[in-house]
Amino acid sequence: MKVEIERDALLGVLEQVAGVVERRNTIPVLSNLLLIVDAGKLSVTGTDLDIEATASASAAGELRTTVPAEKILAAVKSFKAGKLTIAPVEGRHAVTVKQGRGVRTLSTLPADDFPKRPALGKAVSFSIPCVSLARIFAKCTVAQSSDETRYYLMGVFLHTTDTKLRGAATDGHRLIRVEADLPDGASDMADIIVPKKAVAQVLQMMGKSTGEIALQTNGTAIAFQLGDGTIISKLIEGTYPDYNRVIPDVAQNSISVVRDVLIAAASAVTSVVNAEGDKSKVRAVAIDMGIDDEAHEMTAKDQSGTSAVEPIAATYKGKPLQFGVNSQYLRDVAGIFAEGAALTITLHDPAAPLRIVSDNDPDLVGVIMPMRV
Amino acid sequence: MKVEIERDALLGVLEQVAGVVERRNTIPVLSNLLLIVDAGKLSVTGTDLDIEATASASAAGELRTTVPAEKILAAVKSFKAGKLTIAPVEGRHAVTVKQGRGVRTLSTLPADDFPKRPALGKAVSFSIPCVSLARIFAKCTVAQSSDETRYYLMGVFLHTTDTKLRGAATDGHRLIRVEADLPDGASDMADIIVPKKAVAQVLQMMGKSTGEIALQTNGTAIAFQLGDGTIISKLIEGTYPDYNRVIPDVAQNSISVVRDVLIAAASAVTSVVNAEGDKSKVRAVAIDMGIDDEAHEMTAKDQSGTSAVEPIAATYKGKPLQFGVNSQYLRDVAGIFAEGAALTITLHDPAAPLRIVSDNDPDLVGVIMPMRV
Repeated sequence: MKVEIERDALLGVLEQVAGVVERRNTIPVLSNLLLIVDAGKLSVTGTDLDIEATASASAAGELRTTVPAEKILAAVKSFKAGKLTIAPVEGRHAVTVKQGRGVRTLSTLPADDFPKRPALGKAVSFSIPCVSLARIFAKCTVAQSSDETRYYLMGVFLHTTDTKLRGAATDGHRLIRVEADLPDGASDMADIIVPKKAVAQVLQMMGKSTGEIALQTNGTAIAFQLGDGTIISKLIEGTYPDYNRVIPDVAQNSISVVRDVLIAAASAVTSVVNAEGDKSKVRAVAIDMGIDDEAHEMTAKDQSGTSAVEPIAATYKGKPLQFGVNSQYLRDVAGIFAEGAALTITLHDPAAPLRIVSDNDPDLVGVIMPMRV
Repeated sequence: MKVEIERDALLGVLEQVAGVVERRNTIPVLSNLLLIVDAGKLSVTGTDLDIEATASASAAGELRTTVPAEKILAAVKSFKAGKLTIAPVEGRHAVTVKQGRGVRTLSTLPADDFPKRPALGKAVSFSIPCVSLARIFAKCTVAQSSDETRYYLMGVFLHTTDTKLRGAATDGHRLIRVEADLPDGASDMADIIVPKKAVAQVLQMMGKSTGEIALQTNGTAIAFQLGDGTIISKLIEGTYPDYNRVIPDVAQNSISVVRDVLIAAASAVTSVVNAEGDKSKVRAVAIDMGIDDEAHEMTAKDQSGTSAVEPIAATYKGKPLQFGVNSQYLRDVAGIFAEGAALTITLHDPAAPLRIVSDNDPDLVGVIMPMRV
């Protein structure tokens, strides 16, 4: 019951799983990570009962215990690169982590109290390049809802078409849809809603990885496996709304504008009217598209008479038009497209949703609901 | 009543004075900055009635008004480098700031409502190198009190000896004293307490300036003048305690340790026991100095059985000793000495204050009260 492991390897493993551990728990062992060292390998597991993450690294020795997640993370961080020794403390529920004369002592809880992972049972399995799944999850992240009363929107909706794997997220104010080529074996997958926390954890696990990640789902839970790392999460139960009905057709009124021009203008005008951070926040910006391309501009106003007007370098086809939109949503949705991308924004009238696409990113569609200004 | 000015010059001036403006004010004009353009010069003034800051830049035209501090700052930041035009709006209490087709409109209040600066009257004047005053203020900053019931400790105490100008700050738990050569003409200065906010503003105004800063004080207020910038502040009324009585003599027990070794050890052990940020915080660390230099160590413990022990590379002369000290205060006070400085820490016994000095910084003395551990 004594373990030798490299500090950097242990830190990497801890950082990969610690994110699933909640800071406040009524069940004490849920604040802990399960550490098992056996047959030359350390495996570390964290869980919040809905999502479980496991990662592994090489280690010599034997150990089977649980330690507080944040404390072991801080303890390992507080050492320099090099070998660490982990050993139980005689006669106490504790382990020591040592490097030279430096010692950290952490209380433990029995490994047997650590909740077992749910069995996945009969499941659909397939693999997908990390870059494809990372793109779906990363682009959708910003549009996931935070509204507990519409819990079924608090994640990314994954479903398949004949040739595509599609991800979508919406909070009712904006919507993002991303698609990737359908992976082999994925066509039998049921429509699923992956919760926010799993989306974030899987993104972290994939990092910049260029390999393939294995998915396995039985319709109520999903497992993601990449190398020695595994994340198993419950899925959100519920029916995702028919989001494709919200994506409008291409309309007559069409704005061609560079992504960064739009983001910069929205940031500039909003920063002025919201400069006094503690006052009520102005969310809407008005966009005016004139007959003349020299006349296009964006305006933000507050109730005290402050206003900011910024010209927009854009090409416009359609009738003169003024419409309102939430400045932050505009920046978020424009922001999912590549830097410097030429965006095409179409809308039927000032009360209709905006459809945002780009030839640079043909797999993406963004939609923003209008605001009255 | 129309002004032309470079964006970067205006931004610099606004940033220099905006810090004195409080975010919440019951008198509306105190949220504003006074802008006066006349004879080729823009002067900008901000005040909270206790402290007033003024700065200037070149500008063409004429103007005399007040505008909301945070909004003018945000408006100017939202433009690119280049020329700006400021002009009143016909028929409204407002000005526009323009660059090309970009327009920011800000509400104004009459310049005549802006409070006048208090006259300083008969005063002692002298000049001091910015680097000397910056050193006094910067080193003392961390030990200023935040305790409103001991308002006379909420600043830096400045007084003179026969050959020195001395600055001191203490919050009752730690004390810092810095000295500089007595400037010509300073010997007549009364003992004064410069409030925290003035200390911070003057430090910001001096920046990395290598010139001399002019001081003028009548015992109830103080003016700092550097180039075109002026800061006038009320002084704290009250008697500063006889702080020199708190600085202990050099004691028998003497620790020689490198500043950074001490700071790193205190950070390391405290980070482990305080890893769960929402739990009650452990403030004290115990320092053990043994007979053998190999035995010196620092320990932090929480109530759940977590502990962290870190060896301290130090040379010790004296009897074996264990004493406690606040980890943050230790890092703060050690931190005022130069990086890599060899510190000498002396104390009579575990219940006595620590005296911290360094040959690298002979003008500095730090004192920390002990804690029971």
